[in-house]
Amino acid sequence: MPNICVTIAYDGTRYAGWQIQKNAKTIQGEIEKALRKILGEKCHLIGAGRTDSGVHARAQVANFKTNKKIPTAKLQTALNVHLPKDTRIVSIKKVPLKFHAQFNAKSKLYRYTILNSRIDDPFTERFYFKVPYKLDLALMKKEAKTLLGKHDFKSFQAKSDRSPIKSTVRTIKRLSIKKTGDFIHIDIEGNGFLHNMVRNIVGTLIEIGRGYLAESNMKKIIALKDRRKAGPTAPAKGLALEKIIY
Amino acid sequence: MPNICVTIAYDGTRYAGWQIQKNAKTIQGEIEKALRKILGEKCHLIGAGRTDSGVHARAQVANFKTNKKIPTAKLQTALNVHLPKDTRIVSIKKVPLKFHAQFNAKSKLYRYTILNSRIDDPFTERFYFKVPYKLDLALMKKEAKTLLGKHDFKSFQAKSDRSPIKSTVRTIKRLSIKKTGDFIHIDIEGNGFLHNMVRNIVGTLIEIGRGYLAESNMKKIIALKDRRKAGPTAPAKGLALEKIIY
Repeated sequence: MPNICVTIAYDGTRYAGWQIQKNAKTIQGEIEKALRKILGEKCHLIGAGRTDSGVHARAQVANFKTNKKIPTAKLQTALNVHLPKDTRIVSIKKVPLKFHAQFNAKSKLYRYTILNSRIDDPFTERFYFKVPYKLDLALMKKEAKTLLGKHDFKSFQAKSDRSPIKSTVRTIKRLSIKKTGDFIHIDIEGNGFLHNMVRNIVGTLIEIGRGYLAESNMKKIIALKDRRKAGPTAPAKGLALEKIIY
Repeated sequence: MPNICVTIAYDGTRYAGWQIQKNAKTIQGEIEKALRKILGEKCHLIGAGRTDSGVHARAQVANFKTNKKIPTAKLQTALNVHLPKDTRIVSIKKVPLKFHAQFNAKSKLYRYTILNSRIDDPFTERFYFKVPYKLDLALMKKEAKTLLGKHDFKSFQAKSDRSPIKSTVRTIKRLSIKKTGDFIHIDIEGNGFLHNMVRNIVGTLIEIGRGYLAESNMKKIIALKDRRKAGPTAPAKGLALEKIIY
């Protein structure tokens, strides 16, 4: 029973997210459907991280087991023929039987892209959030530093989070804010994320940058453990799962 | 009668090209329609260069004259409200009455993007031509050098070229081939281009890079003045008008 690991890039615009759902188009659903067509058997795909509706991925990782003997290069080609154009299997390999894409992941790197301009970019319009206001980048960088390390991130957890894991303590290993032209990239690497945590952190940083948040001190926002003290949830379209670190 | 100059970025995918046509969606047509709605009068838009169906632009330049008094910043905002999302007015300014976007252009810079990979990139799929074969980049660079300067580019002119200008002599001022990751960018700056000239040059360079062209010597291809000796026309989707130099 070989264990196959795939790396997937997708434009999440048309999807209801990663996780398989009835009556909705999902990345997991499309790949499982393609695998069934190619291999003639039902495979269960284990994704490293669930991305929400509209969130993109440059390198989502997933694994599945199959009894069928098919060279991985052929399987990759067949998957890319069957999958919609907005979803590509960028690499494929056999992995040890015990490999589990979700449980073995040490950390995940997300990138949030802001277009800090009044004018949209028709070339990348689906992959950023446009912020047409002046942002105090130095202040954003300064306050972002407070998020590094192990904290209780309850203030950044979606109220609707129905995850069975009760602890809201997570570790942010890296957080960088870089401006290139009119684009601002916020890279956040962590050992795990609460539901909407990245988007809530970004929404808070944007409000801090605009000088719009009553409490612009990130340390206090964390300490209050109150979702209402943080900023709004930044839109899904600006978020991409960049990398899974094993 | 103020003369207004606009810089336009567009994703050319859904368009039948720049130039206004009956019963087809064109960039010139959409902008003239928007101007008519906003200003209440018909304006004639003069574009610096006509892009073909499916060709993109990061900075097309055009001018028009109007009797209406409207602050340029307001006009820009109104145009971007009326225009489809794939077309943005990135800048606007008043220019001297004698300015003519086409006749005053000293040169034009085009960029052709190749994805040299077997796997598509779902993030930029509309803006490159995928070449899944190994390319000899060093040879392509060497042969491309021959194109620099003033030459008769008849071998690279579309047979269907119905331009009233009879001379096929043009000057290429700059030609660079750069690889970044799996992307190859071919930048070509010239004082003017024959119909399909950039795409025919790129198609020829790709064939040279693959070792597929009987005559892989660019000097000979130019000298033969025969379209059949050059390579095929590279697809429109990889081409973008990058800059107009005045």
